[in-house]
Amino acid sequence: MAETVLLTNIRPLGGPTTNILIEAGRITALDAPIQPGVAVLDGGGRIALPGLVEAHTHLDKSLLGLPWYKNEVGPRLVDKISNEREVRRTLPIDSHQQSARQAALTVSHGATHIRTHVDVDTECGVSGIEGVMQTREALADYVGIDIVAFPQSGLLIRPGTLELMADALRLGAETVGGLDPCAIDRDPKGHLDAIFGLAEQFGRGVDIHLHEPGEMGAFSMELIIERTRALGMGGHVMISHAFCLGMPDPAITEPLIAALAETGIAICTTAPASRPVPAVKRLAAAGVVLCAGSDGIRDTWGPYGNGDMLERAMFVGLRNNLRRHDELDLALATCTTGGAKAIGLAEYGLAAGCWADLVLVPAEAVAEAVAQRPGNRMVLRRGRLVAQGGQALFRVA
Amino acid sequence: MAETVLLTNIRPLGGPTTNILIEAGRITALDAPIQPGVAVLDGGGRIALPGLVEAHTHLDKSLLGLPWYKNEVGPRLVDKISNEREVRRTLPIDSHQQSARQAALTVSHGATHIRTHVDVDTECGVSGIEGVMQTREALADYVGIDIVAFPQSGLLIRPGTLELMADALRLGAETVGGLDPCAIDRDPKGHLDAIFGLAEQFGRGVDIHLHEPGEMGAFSMELIIERTRALGMGGHVMISHAFCLGMPDPAITEPLIAALAETGIAICTTAPASRPVPAVKRLAAAGVVLCAGSDGIRDTWGPYGNGDMLERAMFVGLRNNLRRHDELDLALATCTTGGAKAIGLAEYGLAAGCWADLVLVPAEAVAEAVAQRPGNRMVLRRGRLVAQGGQALFRVA
Repeated sequence: MAETVLLTNIRPLGGPTTNILIEAGRITALDAPIQPGVAVLDGGGRIALPGLVEAHTHLDKSLLGLPWYKNEVGPRLVDKISNEREVRRTLPIDSHQQSARQAALTVSHGATHIRTHVDVDTECGVSGIEGVMQTREALADYVGIDIVAFPQSGLLIRPGTLELMADALRLGAETVGGLDPCAIDRDPKGHLDAIFGLAEQFGRGVDIHLHEPGEMGAFSMELIIERTRALGMGGHVMISHAFCLGMPDPAITEPLIAALAETGIAICTTAPASRPVPAVKRLAAAGVVLCAGSDGIRDTWGPYGNGDMLERAMFVGLRNNLRRHDELDLALATCTTGGAKAIGLAEYGLAAGCWADLVLVPAEAVAEAVAQRPGNRMVLRRGRLVAQGGQALFRVA
Repeated sequence: MAETVLLTNIRPLGGPTTNILIEAGRITALDAPIQPGVAVLDGGGRIALPGLVEAHTHLDKSLLGLPWYKNEVGPRLVDKISNEREVRRTLPIDSHQQSARQAALTVSHGATHIRTHVDVDTECGVSGIEGVMQTREALADYVGIDIVAFPQSGLLIRPGTLELMADALRLGAETVGGLDPCAIDRDPKGHLDAIFGLAEQFGRGVDIHLHEPGEMGAFSMELIIERTRALGMGGHVMISHAFCLGMPDPAITEPLIAALAETGIAICTTAPASRPVPAVKRLAAAGVVLCAGSDGIRDTWGPYGNGDMLERAMFVGLRNNLRRHDELDLALATCTTGGAKAIGLAEYGLAAGCWADLVLVPAEAVAEAVAQRPGNRMVLRRGRLVAQGGQALFRVA
């Protein structure tokens, strides 16, 4: 927690230049004057944005800092899942070390909060959860980390996984993960009853990977909506990927979008260029909470990704053909306020009373920050400078 | 033209570390030993790639270095075209200055060749051509620039444009441009006869923007193929964008792809995330020459783009869901050898006898260079270091 500091010479969301006062880690006054005896941090005329929110990644999977992985993996989802289990046996992937490396990289670009899915399966058990929990504790001053216990290899098709999921929640994972109830677990009712059952038992939220395309995905989404409504879990359920919302027929997607808005289920997109995607303008207009994530970064699944959530906002913009300045504001919002709402962050934003979690970007306009992703940013967490110029100002394993 | 220099400590295409000898701007020996009296340039263990080829951009349109443009343009293609003509009247866009700025930025990231479309219309006449020709001459030691005379506002629908196109070719534009023969010019036969007529008259190649989707685009593509075949112009015709090849029905696309391969028409993609695109793996397998470009960079059309052709290769990879190392080699090839072949560069590559146009990238593997786009590159043109660490080592307007 930082002392009192006056952050000067910043332009909140690209507006006029001003100063803000930060006390005990929170923004306590806007347009604050310079006062004798109060430390000053010069924002250098940068745009101030609320800290970027990485709402969907896999901190336990990254190969950052290890020799470059030569990807020769097959094309199907199951190829990637089984290859990863195999690699985990042979490579020394330490989930604490790898998650700390990726978290630091993500903070270096401006994120102050991360939701990560962490594998739980009958081979690795909850060791990944333990490793990422170590990172969460070690880096608590620098970034908030929310852990989803994630049955990557399937829940019901791998007996013993459900019990491990419960162990993960008891240990300290915040959120119950799920995965393709039809396509992977082959039992949509069974899968969803199990994870919503865990959520009810432990009083936690749910975050489900839903890659299922077309009508199959729409069916699974209906089942998720039914359970969210029945349990009154609105505001605590996220569907990640949601490729089925990229179907062209509005007769199928519009009722789903309306139901997502009504039940308060958030949608997370990685804005992939090669898959159908939820249309962010349509969903935002309907009142659906929208957020964005990097998914895996430089792992056995693929070579891409750098943890820069301004770059992710750009991908959201490119995927949705957003070009106007107001459209780029929306792209940014998926990586700021949308993410904060989706993962339930309190006191988030640029208002007095909010935590001073900020990224300062040398750009003329929000649209420039998103489309051009300038370097030389400054990142503040709880009022303290934690990264500058693309470098985290703290050490990781 | 540089003196004799031994470029040491490089890994061609990610292979073993070696040295190459450069004399009078050309690679003259591979695996060359250190010799007394020969200057040494240390590649620092970087991967050596042939100079990146920007095969489709608009150097005359960029707003680089000007105040950030607040985009409030309508959604249709014609909105963007007419807005741009309007802005050109009100903003001080100097086509020499702007093209030089963008060319320098593009070189700074590793490109050694650029094909640029330059607007020719009844308002700006050939002033854009003249400005970019000035840049071509001023920067000839640093980058090769190929100019396409481009009837952005339409050819037949704006009488007088055809004559201006001929003027542009007389002045020194290399290539005849065209644009959406159905959708913009409303007369596909007339448009294509006119531009192929100019090509025949001046002995030049053709490069046609074909945004037209679906069956309309396929029809225009057939007309282009017919003319290319009739005139024996294979190897001298490019179709840019070619969204119609992104149609899902192989019964429509396969005959087109076969005809493109047989006639030697190159396809250029910008790999947009929000439009259908030519499938690079399928086209490459069929033997179609493939290249890539940035399209407009930070202009009135949109806020995106930075001229980094390694980033463009990444976009090709993301759009086509390329993840395996051999697939990323293909993504890179669209921005190196494919581009060189498509725009007709002679003596291009890493073999002895080729021009020493190179980019050196600090990466372990080609896949890393593409997916992670590391900074701290070195760029050589004709054997001379022209950019390092993202900075051009020459001055522009």
